[in-house]
Order: sequence, then structure tokens, then C-alpha cells
Amino acid sequence: MTLSRRRRWFLLLLGGLLAATLLAGVAGWAGAAGSADPLPSWNPGAARDGILRFVRQTTDPASPGFVPPGERIATFDQDGTLWVEQPVYPQVRFILERVPGAVTTRGELERLAATALSGMPLETFRSDVRQWLATARHPRWQRPYTELTYQPMQELLRYLRAHGYKTYIVTGGGQDFVRVYAEQVYGIPPEQVIGSAGATRYGYDSAGRPFLTKEPRLLLNDNDAGKPEGIQLMIGRRPIAAFGNSTGDRQMLEYTKAGDGPRLAMLVLHDDARREYAYGPALGLPDTRVGRFTQELHDEARRQGWIVISMKNDWRRLFPFDR
Amino acid sequence: MTLSRRRRWFLLLLGGLLAATLLAGVAGWAGAAGSADPLPSWNPGAARDGILRFVRQTTDPASPGFVPPGERIATFDQDGTLWVEQPVYPQVRFILERVPGAVTTRGELERLAATALSGMPLETFRSDVRQWLATARHPRWQRPYTELTYQPMQELLRYLRAHGYKTYIVTGGGQDFVRVYAEQVYGIPPEQVIGSAGATRYGYDSAGRPFLTKEPRLLLNDNDAGKPEGIQLMIGRRPIAAFGNSTGDRQMLEYTKAGDGPRLAMLVLHDDARREYAYGPALGLPDTRVGRFTQELHDEARRQGWIVISMKNDWRRLFPFDR
Repeated sequence: MTLSRRRRWFLLLLGGLLAATLLAGVAGWAGAAGSADPLPSWNPGAARDGILRFVRQTTDPASPGFVPPGERIATFDQDGTLWVEQPVYPQVRFILERVPGAVTTRGELERLAATALSGMPLETFRSDVRQWLATARHPRWQRPYTELTYQPMQELLRYLRAHGYKTYIVTGGGQDFVRVYAEQVYGIPPEQVIGSAGATRYGYDSAGRPFLTKEPRLLLNDNDAGKPEGIQLMIGRRPIAAFGNSTGDRQMLEYTKAGDGPRLAMLVLHDDARREYAYGPALGLPDTRVGRFTQELHDEARRQGWIVISMKNDWRRLFPFDR
Repeated sequence: MTLSRRRRWFLLLLGGLLAATLLAGVAGWAGAAGSADPLPSWNPGAARDGILRFVRQTTDPASPGFVPPGERIATFDQDGTLWVEQPVYPQVRFILERVPGAVTTRGELERLAATALSGMPLETFRSDVRQWLATARHPRWQRPYTELTYQPMQELLRYLRAHGYKTYIVTGGGQDFVRVYAEQVYGIPPEQVIGSAGATRYGYDSAGRPFLTKEPRLLLNDNDAGKPEGIQLMIGRRPIAAFGNSTGDRQMLEYTKAGDGPRLAMLVLHDDARREYAYGPALGLPDTRVGRFTQELHDEARRQGWIVISMKNDWRRLFPFDR
């Protein structure tokens, strides 16, 4: 009887252990899936290491640099940082197909774009963008622009989000334009897209239904100093990490790095003419006037501890469609 | 031996069942906690029923009105909707203590406020607001303004968030002002506070550190038609639910209700002079010129199916400090 009772308890314990093992097995499997390389398209090196170290420092509760989840804000430029911007910004092509006559300067283009789009119901603009994206093709790859996103940056976006980061696009491009596809292409919802933004006007259609119309008045020029100003307007706190590729991102990176604790600032250098494009003019690369990465910016990056990502050396795989 | 093996299996099974029961017990306890009344400060009635029905319709995957979590946007006016706005908006008191001389009109106040605050570093403004909030007292309750929030609305905010809603403040008040306390007081982070917003200017201090300064240029007057315009600027999609209390919220509610599928639009009517204040001028209530709820607005609410919340009848408990 004593033995039997002991055995009973032993077997109960064994049963409990089996159940626990089963649970641990499931958890272990999930853990193993989570510990697979989160950045498979990044080559080993300073850029990849910098990302991994930063995320560890800011998300490990035992780290002195720990940042509470709500404050984990990461901002990304789009053109040249998340997708291809050469030989001309995709949005510029969209606008050029919509404005009459020849355009030679950027100021002229912006003025014409504002006039052409002014008075257009926002919904009409959106469906226009959607339709254009579905049919327009990049001249080099003959693919939709939305397929020409950088796989390493897509992995970085997901990796940061998996660690409690809220990812934002902060682009000089049009806010209404980018919001049309950002959720589908980058997993970034409209409210996390900050861009150059025009005013809208609230009104009613003939049936009395309210709708918004695009106005020619520019509220935010989200380039250069406009980036931290736009971040303040739309987010209201300083990012912990910021990513860009040109002089237009300088102030955003400065502003991000000026906060206390661990900060990550990175710039993509397009030095890969074979797989994409090579342009600077930093390091003697050609000056294409689109997305300029000047020598001055390169010097500031070194001085401030910003990490320069070499497309050629740091990225193993470039596009999602690459094998 | 056969019996012994059977017994062993039986006991193993029993052990497993015990473990399963333990787990189910934990889950059941969590479930019971979740099913407690989420709106204890609301009296039974059309307002409370309307909220519960709307949340069921939009969050039950089997419902034809189901809304995916990312699209569950709820916008709340602040003054008079989330906290007390009488006898004068708290922010107006803050400004009046900072501008010299007597102010008699609202336009004059806004002009003086812009001048007084212009050129002020954003961080200085923020610590000013923090300090004022810590010391200022409401003349009637002799309590900090941040304690004078409506308990039923606090419950509603939490209830919506527990069902996947992203809650926003959309206020005619100053965006920089409200962001200072919204996270602590309402659980709403700065990036989900939209308000009347001035421009900032990016610059450097004498040590070369970047900082932002408040500028006198108004980017968004977040009242009336400015509310849907501000929602478009900052969120980029239409809310599913909107809450207000005055004519300044009319367009936000119209815009919200004009979308497809189930929509919730509610207006707080201050008809409780004993516990708070009674003002309209709708339904013959006094016209205090602060947070006006006109008869025209009341008529539109009825026509459009907006729910009017009677503070007197629908709210059992008013403030968090009430017993």
C-alpha cells in the first residue's frame, strides 16, 4: 500500500512532467524559430553588428540603455533608403505624366504639381496613385516600383517591430502619395507615414456627403530641417533610431543622435553600380543630383558615429525577387 | 502486471488532466476578469447599449460589420468631452497667466499667446506646462485639472483599447500643451494627440546641439472643419468612432459617420449643474459661450443617428475621485 501510494505519486509527477515537457517543447520550438537569423540579407560586419547591439542595448530590461516599448521610435527615409530612387524619384515620374508641357527645374515641378493636383478630391488622387503604381514600370528592371524595395531594409523594419519598435517613414516625398502603398509594401500604416504634406479642405458633395479636397497650400516640406520639424508635428517625441541616405536626412539623424542613451543613426551609401547604382559625390562616386550623399555628409557621419551602410559590401541580397 | 500497466496509464492520464485543469483554471480566471462590467460608471440606457453594440459589431469576426484591428480608429475631443472645460478652458488660464495686460477677445488671446510663446524652445514650453499643471487648481474643486477627467470616458477609452482600438485625442486645444500630460492622464501617447499646432524651427544651441523652437506660424486650427483636416494630416484615414461635446466637433462626427459599415458618433451633453455644469444652449440650457452645444447641433445629432450622452442620466459616477 505504501509502495502503491508512492508509485501513484511518482506516476502523477511523471504525468505532470510529461505535460510540462510538451509545453516546454512547444515553447522551445517557438524560441528556436525566433532565434533564426533575423537579418539574413546582411553580410557580417559593422553595420549588421551595430543594429544587433543597438537592439540588445535598448530592449534588454537588464541593460542600462533599456528603452520602454512606447518610446521605441524608429524613422526611415524612403527614396534611396527603402526603395530605388534612381534615375529619378518614382513620384516625380508620376507627377510628370500629369502636368502639361516640359518641366526643367524642381521649383517649377513643385509649382506645377500643386496646381495640377489642387482642387482634386483626395479619394480621386488616391485611386490615381493606385492605378499608376499598378501599371508603371522601372526602366531598368521593368518591374513595378513597389517591388524595388531593399530586402535588407525590409528585414530591418520587421526586426525592429518584433522588438517593440514603432517604425515610421519620414520622407521628402508626398505624404498622401506614400500612404497609398506603405502599409502593403512596408507594413507601415498611414498614420506612421510623415511626408511633405499639403493642406486639405473639408466640404460637401451635392448629396451632402462630406469629403476632402487637396489644396495648393504646403504645410510641411519634409526635407532637411523639415524632417525633425515634421517628426515633432506628427510624433511629438524624438526617435531612438533613424535611417537615411542623403543630405536631406542630415538633420533627422542629428536630432535623433542628440538624445540621451543608446541611439542608432545609419546612412545607406549607394556604391554598387552592378546590382543597383553608384552615386555620391562622397568618396569620388558620381554626382547624379538625385539623393546626394556629399563628402561633407560622409565626414559628419564619421565624426558623429553614424554608421555608413555600404550597399556593395553590407548587403548580401538586394531585392526581394533576388535569389 | 496488466493491471499495473493500466493503472500506470490511468495515473499518467490523471496527471495530464490535472495539469490541463490547472491551465484551464488559470484561463478561466483570466476570462472571468475580462467579462466583468467594462463600463461600471455608465447607467443602463441607450448610450451604454450603443457603445457595447458598436464594439460587438466591429470586433466580432463573424459580424458583417467587422473591422480589422489596424482600422479601428477612435477620436476624442478633449475639453468638455474628456475633462472639465468650465468656467474657462484650462489652457486659456495657462496662457492668461503668461501674457501681459488684459485680454478681451479670443482673437486677441490667440495673437498674444503666439507672440508670447514664439521663439521659446519647445523643451522650455513643456517644462512650463508641467510645472503649471502641478500647481494650478480648478476654482470649484480645488484640484489639479488633470484629476477632473470624466471616469465614464476613461472607462470607454480603456474598453475601446482592450478591443483593438487606437484612441486619439483631436482637440482644438494646443497640440504641444495636451501632449505633455495625455499619456499619463489618458494613456494616449504624444503621437496620438492631434491639436491646434504651430510650426517649430530646427536650430542649434551654442554647443552645436540641435533643438526646436516654437514659431508663431499656425499650421493647423483643429476646430470645426479643421478636425477632419487634422485627422487626414496626422492619421490619414477615417475614424470608425468619434466623440465630442460641442459645435467644434460637428465636422469630425459627420466625417466619421460618412464612412461605410457600423460607425459610432457621440456627444456629451452637460446637463448636470449639481455634479458639474449645465450648458447648451440646446434644450434651453444656459449659453455660457464655452463649448457650445447648440439646438442646431442637437437637431443634427437626432437626424444623423448620433447618440447624445446625458451627463445627468447616463453617468453614474463622474470623476475618478468620486466614490
